[in-house]
Amino acid sequence: MSVKLSIIYYSSTGTNYQLAQWAKAAAEAKGAEVRLVKVTELAPMGAIESNPAWKEHYEATKDVPEATSDDITWADALLFSVPSRFGTMPSQMKQYIDSQGGLWANGQTINKVVSAMSSAQNPHGGQEATILSLYTSMMHWGAIIAAPGYSDPVLFGAGGNPYGTSVTVSGEGEMQEDVKGAVEHQVNRTLDIASMVVNGSN
Amino acid sequence: MSVKLSIIYYSSTGTNYQLAQWAKAAAEAKGAEVRLVKVTELAPMGAIESNPAWKEHYEATKDVPEATSDDITWADALLFSVPSRFGTMPSQMKQYIDSQGGLWANGQTINKVVSAMSSAQNPHGGQEATILSLYTSMMHWGAIIAAPGYSDPVLFGAGGNPYGTSVTVSGEGEMQEDVKGAVEHQVNRTLDIASMVVNGSN
Amino acid sequence: MSVKLSIIYYSSTGTNYQLAQWAKAAAEAKGAEVRLVKVTELAPMGAIESNPAWKEHYEATKDVPEATSDDITWADALLFSVPSRFGTMPSQMKQYIDSQGGLWANGQTINKVVSAMSSAQNPHGGQEATILSLYTSMMHWGAIIAAPGYSDPVLFGAGGNPYGTSVTVSGEGEMQEDVKGAVEHQVNRTLDIASMVVNGSN
Amino acid sequence: MSVKLSIIYYSSTGTNYQLAQWAKAAAEAKGAEVRLVKVTELAPMGAIESNPAWKEHYEATKDVPEATSDDITWADALLFSVPSRFGTMPSQMKQYIDSQGGLWANGQTINKVVSAMSSAQNPHGGQEATILSLYTSMMHWGAIIAAPGYSDPVLFGAGGNPYGTSVTVSGEGEMQEDVKGAVEHQVNRTLDIASMVVNGSN
Repeated sequence: MSVKLSIIYYSSTGTNYQLAQWAKAAAEAKGAEVRLVKVTELAPMGAIESNPAWKEHYEATKDVPEATSDDITWADALLFSVPSRFGTMPSQMKQYIDSQGGLWANGQTINKVVSAMSSAQNPHGGQEATILSLYTSMMHWGAIIAAPGYSDPVLFGAGGNPYGTSVTVSGEGEMQEDVKGAVEHQVNRTLDIASMVVNGSN
Repeated sequence: MSVKLSIIYYSSTGTNYQLAQWAKAAAEAKGAEVRLVKVTELAPMGAIESNPAWKEHYEATKDVPEATSDDITWADALLFSVPSRFGTMPSQMKQYIDSQGGLWANGQTINKVVSAMSSAQNPHGGQEATILSLYTSMMHWGAIIAAPGYSDPVLFGAGGNPYGTSVTVSGEGEMQEDVKGAVEHQVNRTLDIASMVVNGSN
Repeated sequence: MSVKLSIIYYSSTGTNYQLAQWAKAAAEAKGAEVRLVKVTELAPMGAIESNPAWKEHYEATKDVPEATSDDITWADALLFSVPSRFGTMPSQMKQYIDSQGGLWANGQTINKVVSAMSSAQNPHGGQEATILSLYTSMMHWGAIIAAPGYSDPVLFGAGGNPYGTSVTVSGEGEMQEDVKGAVEHQVNRTLDIASMVVNGSN
Repeated sequence: MSVKLSIIYYSSTGTNYQLAQWAKAAAEAKGAEVRLVKVTELAPMGAIESNPAWKEHYEATKDVPEATSDDITWADALLFSVPSRFGTMPSQMKQYIDSQGGLWANGQTINKVVSAMSSAQNPHGGQEATILSLYTSMMHWGAIIAAPGYSDPVLFGAGGNPYGTSVTVSGEGEMQEDVKGAVEHQVNRTLDIASMVVNGSN
């Protein structure tokens, strides 16, 4: 039985959208059913329009579906991708998570296999802390946390973040490390664990 | 010189507003200049209206000013009060913090003395983790973190949360522990440290 | 195929030994193969002997085997139980974990299903933070983290700690809450997930 | 009145000793009274001797005094420096901290100004998480946490770790980033805040 994966991201200027797309391609190549969804923007249009890169990405991803509760109930595994905002996830993602109180109360968040990725402008600008904080919330959901650890040599070349793939982004929006292989490994590992959970439950 | 304290809170049904009011009274009794401000609600009116307690509190606090960037630049000390939402701060508070990128870039968040309080429906439902996560964000701001530790015996009676006062709230919205004295101590300690920073800088 | 569970604990005056014993009984009742092992004491005998309760427990558990690396390689699942020491795990447990660098380097810590329990003298004295911090280390090991979340109503009665069962202990060493059912649920859930991983891998 | 600073470190192969020495020189240049102390080694001699770099550093620092409780009571400010061990501090430092229960119970840890530094073999190998976890313990002590944030441009060049200076170390023990300026800034800032606390209290 194929594994169902929801990739849920927030991106203002495109980094986490790129991470999410790499993840989607890897997951599909492995035979998973994949949904790629963005969380709802909370920033006012004025803020978005004052930053050309943000405006451009906002327009370019208008057709990406917005994440709903169904993207959680449907899925066996959830992969989150978010930029750091002062060491924790952006309000846009937090708003999405906070809004799932109904699912949570019904037990529909239990045993989802969860993994997460992040980005920041500085190498130590919350790349670890943001993912750890997101996992804290996921433990409230009864999730099974599948951080990559050091489960493949490709992770060392990508900065060796055991909590999840993360990347440094320059002021011009350029990724400073090559993390594509790490994203692919993280997705494969997440799907492997989700497959164990799905098949082992039957 | 009197210390300037901004108490910045989010509350849906009133617990953190009560904590904030106790803090305000204690701070004024000690001679501080105090602002008590709420962060902007993000939930749709439909969600608010579906919960009578939330609706009632929303109406009752309509006249509490909404927090702005000036409440940070003006202040020597910041006291945050938030309910736990899955072990981290609510999106409403995160949105307020995320919106201060301009202040941050100008160095206007540096050396604010910061302390925080929380609440949850379960005794261990994120009462510790929520405050710790908020402090992580505050470290990005260059804040001076003034957690209470075990600096007064009153804290033991209030659950002994060394990160900040926290309280358990029943489904009916009743606080389960008497934490008023702990709030008062935390405010006094925060003001004492802020006073050292203000006076010691001169 | 039965699941192999290592319960690895540190206890000075008996609380975490009791949690570990409840866990062992529940795991055996479910058909798991169980090892119950303590980590090596680091405190000098003078410190132990100056505290009658510590001395008594030290003597009473002399025959409990000390944890070795083999208790990790052998196991499908690891359940840790530790008192909080200033919000993080005691040095005794950290020393045991730090000593597993060889296993880690060989990939032998990957995909262990991990869950953890804690205790503290205050309700908010690190009961959450200690478990979260231990999970951070386990992510470095490539573990699959199986925090209980709110996966059973019994957890609410035991304080509702979604990261793992935790208990408050009085100065006289008496547990302040009834957490036996929560321990049993956490063990059952950990074994269920480990069983999925073991069987789903085949 | 000059500020008293204790620099308390653990180092196996020399990185954190180097960070500590840079800190000492900067603190003395600023007129502080400084103690530089190492925590007691817990590893067996066999482990130390099996690693030539560890053995060499162990011998070379034999005359560095070992940290005692007096190094805390004497000091106005504490600067910790530790390598990451699976995302949290090494057992050697935890043992030192755990051993201060007596000071803690007497209130002698309250209002120490605390800052911390770290190192890891991977850029995201716990450089953030280790410092954050150490601060969690310090909050139990009632410390005033003085993380650097982004309080000086030199921090950006050193990896931009807002929690404290951190550095990546190669397998050969070579620091991969130039963090000397960041260490110096962190020390100066810690002393400035400690000076405010000392002078503002009078």
